[in-house]
Amino acid sequence: MSSTFGTLFRVTTFGESHCRGVGVVVDGCPPRMELTEDDIQPQLDRRRPGQSRLTTERDEKDRVTILSGTEHGRTLGTPIALLVANRDQKPSDYRHLDFIPRPSHADYTYQMKYGIRAASGGGRSSARETIGRVAAGAVAEKLLRLSCGVEIVAWVSSVGPVEAPAPDMAAVTRREVDRSPVRCPHEASAEEMAAVITAARDDQDSVGGVVTCVCRGVPVGLGEPVFDKLEARLAQAMLSIPATKGFEIGSGFAGTRLRGSVHNDAFVEKGDRLGTRTNNSGGVLGGISSGEDVYFRVAFKPPATIGRPQETVDFQGRAVVLEAKGRHDPCVVPRAVPIVESMAALVLADLVLRQRSLKGEV
Amino acid sequence: MSSTFGTLFRVTTFGESHCRGVGVVVDGCPPRMELTEDDIQPQLDRRRPGQSRLTTERDEKDRVTILSGTEHGRTLGTPIALLVANRDQKPSDYRHLDFIPRPSHADYTYQMKYGIRAASGGGRSSARETIGRVAAGAVAEKLLRLSCGVEIVAWVSSVGPVEAPAPDMAAVTRREVDRSPVRCPHEASAEEMAAVITAARDDQDSVGGVVTCVCRGVPVGLGEPVFDKLEARLAQAMLSIPATKGFEIGSGFAGTRLRGSVHNDAFVEKGDRLGTRTNNSGGVLGGISSGEDVYFRVAFKPPATIGRPQETVDFQGRAVVLEAKGRHDPCVVPRAVPIVESMAALVLADLVLRQRSLKGEV
Amino acid sequence: MSSTFGTLFRVTTFGESHCRGVGVVVDGCPPRMELTEDDIQPQLDRRRPGQSRLTTERDEKDRVTILSGTEHGRTLGTPIALLVANRDQKPSDYRHLDFIPRPSHADYTYQMKYGIRAASGGGRSSARETIGRVAAGAVAEKLLRLSCGVEIVAWVSSVGPVEAPAPDMAAVTRREVDRSPVRCPHEASAEEMAAVITAARDDQDSVGGVVTCVCRGVPVGLGEPVFDKLEARLAQAMLSIPATKGFEIGSGFAGTRLRGSVHNDAFVEKGDRLGTRTNNSGGVLGGISSGEDVYFRVAFKPPATIGRPQETVDFQGRAVVLEAKGRHDPCVVPRAVPIVESMAALVLADLVLRQRSLKGEV
Amino acid sequence: MSSTFGTLFRVTTFGESHCRGVGVVVDGCPPRMELTEDDIQPQLDRRRPGQSRLTTERDEKDRVTILSGTEHGRTLGTPIALLVANRDQKPSDYRHLDFIPRPSHADYTYQMKYGIRAASGGGRSSARETIGRVAAGAVAEKLLRLSCGVEIVAWVSSVGPVEAPAPDMAAVTRREVDRSPVRCPHEASAEEMAAVITAARDDQDSVGGVVTCVCRGVPVGLGEPVFDKLEARLAQAMLSIPATKGFEIGSGFAGTRLRGSVHNDAFVEKGDRLGTRTNNSGGVLGGISSGEDVYFRVAFKPPATIGRPQETVDFQGRAVVLEAKGRHDPCVVPRAVPIVESMAALVLADLVLRQRSLKGEV
Repeated sequence: MSSTFGTLFRVTTFGESHCRGVGVVVDGCPPRMELTEDDIQPQLDRRRPGQSRLTTERDEKDRVTILSGTEHGRTLGTPIALLVANRDQKPSDYRHLDFIPRPSHADYTYQMKYGIRAASGGGRSSARETIGRVAAGAVAEKLLRLSCGVEIVAWVSSVGPVEAPAPDMAAVTRREVDRSPVRCPHEASAEEMAAVITAARDDQDSVGGVVTCVCRGVPVGLGEPVFDKLEARLAQAMLSIPATKGFEIGSGFAGTRLRGSVHNDAFVEKGDRLGTRTNNSGGVLGGISSGEDVYFRVAFKPPATIGRPQETVDFQGRAVVLEAKGRHDPCVVPRAVPIVESMAALVLADLVLRQRSLKGEV
Repeated sequence: MSSTFGTLFRVTTFGESHCRGVGVVVDGCPPRMELTEDDIQPQLDRRRPGQSRLTTERDEKDRVTILSGTEHGRTLGTPIALLVANRDQKPSDYRHLDFIPRPSHADYTYQMKYGIRAASGGGRSSARETIGRVAAGAVAEKLLRLSCGVEIVAWVSSVGPVEAPAPDMAAVTRREVDRSPVRCPHEASAEEMAAVITAARDDQDSVGGVVTCVCRGVPVGLGEPVFDKLEARLAQAMLSIPATKGFEIGSGFAGTRLRGSVHNDAFVEKGDRLGTRTNNSGGVLGGISSGEDVYFRVAFKPPATIGRPQETVDFQGRAVVLEAKGRHDPCVVPRAVPIVESMAALVLADLVLRQRSLKGEV
Repeated sequence: MSSTFGTLFRVTTFGESHCRGVGVVVDGCPPRMELTEDDIQPQLDRRRPGQSRLTTERDEKDRVTILSGTEHGRTLGTPIALLVANRDQKPSDYRHLDFIPRPSHADYTYQMKYGIRAASGGGRSSARETIGRVAAGAVAEKLLRLSCGVEIVAWVSSVGPVEAPAPDMAAVTRREVDRSPVRCPHEASAEEMAAVITAARDDQDSVGGVVTCVCRGVPVGLGEPVFDKLEARLAQAMLSIPATKGFEIGSGFAGTRLRGSVHNDAFVEKGDRLGTRTNNSGGVLGGISSGEDVYFRVAFKPPATIGRPQETVDFQGRAVVLEAKGRHDPCVVPRAVPIVESMAALVLADLVLRQRSLKGEV
Repeated sequence: MSSTFGTLFRVTTFGESHCRGVGVVVDGCPPRMELTEDDIQPQLDRRRPGQSRLTTERDEKDRVTILSGTEHGRTLGTPIALLVANRDQKPSDYRHLDFIPRPSHADYTYQMKYGIRAASGGGRSSARETIGRVAAGAVAEKLLRLSCGVEIVAWVSSVGPVEAPAPDMAAVTRREVDRSPVRCPHEASAEEMAAVITAARDDQDSVGGVVTCVCRGVPVGLGEPVFDKLEARLAQAMLSIPATKGFEIGSGFAGTRLRGSVHNDAFVEKGDRLGTRTNNSGGVLGGISSGEDVYFRVAFKPPATIGRPQETVDFQGRAVVLEAKGRHDPCVVPRAVPIVESMAALVLADLVLRQRSLKGEV
């Protein structure tokens, strides 16, 4: 297990689906920042299942409590521990899956790696694990907003075969994103996506999608070549989210088809700094933020847990037909939006603090 | 700067393009492994420019020397320092670029981040930086081969618009890959790719491409959820390579279009272990290797340095037309093949050592 | 703040004296180990104030709860979060100290470093911070006991001017140590020490002391030269405990007066391994455990908070006379005994896991 | 092996006594600092053996070369690799010790830990390993001097039974320290110490000693509670130096005998800041520098390698009489002075960079 992320803004998450609670310790947050539960709860509410008929119907309230690290509503510079109690702390209807590793799920590998696994609900590979990330991400976002004016907005850009046209990345807001339950700011596409998700659910099936994210106002200079380049840390952060299979920044895979003369982003004057005419680079040059918008896409596979019967084998290799009961999402991308934003915030907050260490007289 | 990678198998690279040398310190390699320069040189030779008319014409011999960490051809368990001298240790014809940041290159961001940058050759953002990675990767590969029989093979799967059909991932070898200078094992595609690269060069332009990599024989259980999942570390490793813009594992972005019932990899018995019928997961489940082949794709943009005139501005914002002189690659993917293999090896070697710590009686 | 310790067995503590709670996340504990609150509570009880008239009279119950990481009483290999609620969660009679930095206390430096500090009770520099260490240490101790049979016993070896004769280090037990409230296994010395502490308290003063610790059954080979030598990590661990001013291992400072011919520990056969006739080395050679007992001493200064009037200045530099009210220990060493044991366990558990990574075929 | 030290100012050392060279990679040094070999060589010369008849007679020139990280005499912000070639790269007269582990030396534990060890000269446990530390320390010292005016001076405060009176810590200089070959600034004591060392050498024996170090001008606020407190990192750094057995800061072990009313350092106004009347704390409060001088003492045992016959056993447990031939120091403390200074500089430089990350608007 490696549950700690970051060098200076450093988070450590804990908790699995059916223990007493899930949470995070945020160490390294600068002191004197105003912070209460109200800064954190909104993103947790966006991550929560049960927000619409498109997502799982469980209603987990997921109230966060600040256990330490603040006094009179301000950070002390000490570790901020955040806890969300699990309401459902007992093994439930996952019980029958104990001896059948669910296809494309972590049951098999957890069992082989640890020789034990949580008897219920997926344990640490459950989506509940992301609560700690989102809670910590809200702290990071506030730090970024106050210290450099960074804004992070993610949205669903595709569901199954439905791809939405790109919004105006310089302007798209969370409010626009949240207008549809599917979290796609393009209305017509959102409706199509909803139909695709509903159809999958009606078929006791699931479907994948892509989340796109833009970080605006990122100051030039963030990223630590060579191994902690900005895009490298973002890639790690995104591929650490459950169900992700891909990451691309700027022109991504499509850019590989272009020639340099087309792909290169020419410099232009933008006020008192240099900017670029195009932004195929996605806001990074040589692993360091350029001052242009940082944008990237994250691929989420269709959820592995489906109601349809699946032919597979149990741990002993005996052929079985598996029909998952219980609660599960037909599509994770709407709920993944705040998770992607949170992980981006954790990466940026850490790199802001690291960049500060270069400042000062030598 | 963050030039160290890995927790237990830990490498620290150093050097820029025109200093005395480039290299790496490998700390944490287990003792008693046979190791000489002959284990390392072949991958460096594959990385070296000047191997064919498709890559840059510089002939850098890049001979590696083991400075420490071995005696009588065996590792001591102590840090292994590896050095490749730079033959060209003086500023050269990059000089005129000093005041013009090359579009889509790191000149601008290095200058803004550090307030200084190497006067020649790209400094630390130069491709020469990868020598240390490849040298260390060769050590990691040997460790993986001897300790678990892991085999890593990468190849060029696309150049510009030319996509090669997938080889048999269970069987493709480096010998087959190296048959063509473009490092694509599919002969007809390799010829097309070579033509695309030649055309780009003739136009003083450049072109991008994709490298695919397979890791065979990876034991089940590698990867440290939640932040050091196998795919998360691979993603970080790949996006830390110069000129990369994307990473996908298994079904990747294409998999997002599928339904779960199609995408899920059913378990089957394979000898004395479970395996899966399909491998859309790319050999990872929940961030942990499943025993199936680990495979992934890495997107490389077209190189930024091109001979064609480019309209841009200098550091003061004055409009200029830039025509890069000097030596530069029209396409990096053929040379990127051993770099991708090396980074994969560094990730896997570290995770093998970390997994060992769970073993033993409790 | 740097609240994380360890590379593979990695603990992150949180909490200050008057927030909701204090605790720790233990990441990297191997799976399948039996673990319940009953394994942890006893050391917390030994750390707790109010155990005897020699320590502070507060009665903090300090009940630990396992929030995550176990199921049916066994570890899952996932992060183990441990929480102890604070019963006294409000600012109290420390209030008047807000503008007077207590001499030899952390008030001044926390205020200068963070620009803010907990309004009550010392915040993160309070002794309550050590609860997380002790809770995590109990987990580490259990791992060490089960995996290699390591036993760790610490005791008070001096209080003020009273030095106890050394016990038989090969045999001394916690039961013997706990026979006296002062935690010195030598009965006559314990009585003298108690008298010294009582006298200090009657004078509204405080007194320092030394804790000695032995780790028996440490397997040969633990310690990671050059910067994580066993003694280096122990030294860091001990000097991170509040109120410590010194550390020595084996012959320590006294050994500097000797000649090598006297100081050297000659090897002898001990069963099927080599041992040493004497043990001036304190169980370490070149930073690596030798198989002999590891023993060391830790110096604790007299507590800074005393009732006697002290002439000092406030934050504005105005002369004041400070008389601390409230609850405070006249001597910390009796309660420091389990803290020293816990930190030793954290160091050893981490090094055991790191050493395992060297094992296996290469 | 763990050869990396520091979080932001991060050094990685390599090399053993008879390989091609020893050195260090310094990653994280801020850019634009003037730096040439001339900044580094003087401390290496002070560390070098053969400076006087009191130390070993080998004459190792130990010339340092900057391999990377600077251009035109200024740092680039990239890794600074420093190399000192070994002139004696072949197995020599240590050969006969192969099968006899030297008492109180690392031969035995290295062999047991790694299953192999350098056939000659002590390998990585040799004093040559400290060359990398001293080279890196010189870079750190320059950074500290330029950025905050920190001055670090260490000296020999005792040799065997001879203890020198304390110099004026606010004023003592390296020039005064270097006036005597024994590096004790108190002339009469230096002569006595020299006599003690000479006598030990004439007896083919060795003798221990203590090095004291003061760091002046340390800004208030350095140190990262709770595990990276300033004294904790200093303790780790010092106990990682070969042959050390103890560390104490401020009043240290002697302070444990005092009462709080005597030991506490009352605050007083000092110009525009608070200072303390006394400095029993040694410049740290709660793990954070207070602005007062940081001072500490380090215990060095008598060197293990002596010419006198020693009764011991070989690796097979057979009784033997060992008579070390070859070159060895009768006392390491004179040469340890720059090593202690260097390690102190590495600790402080890292903490300065970490403290900077707290600065800036939130």
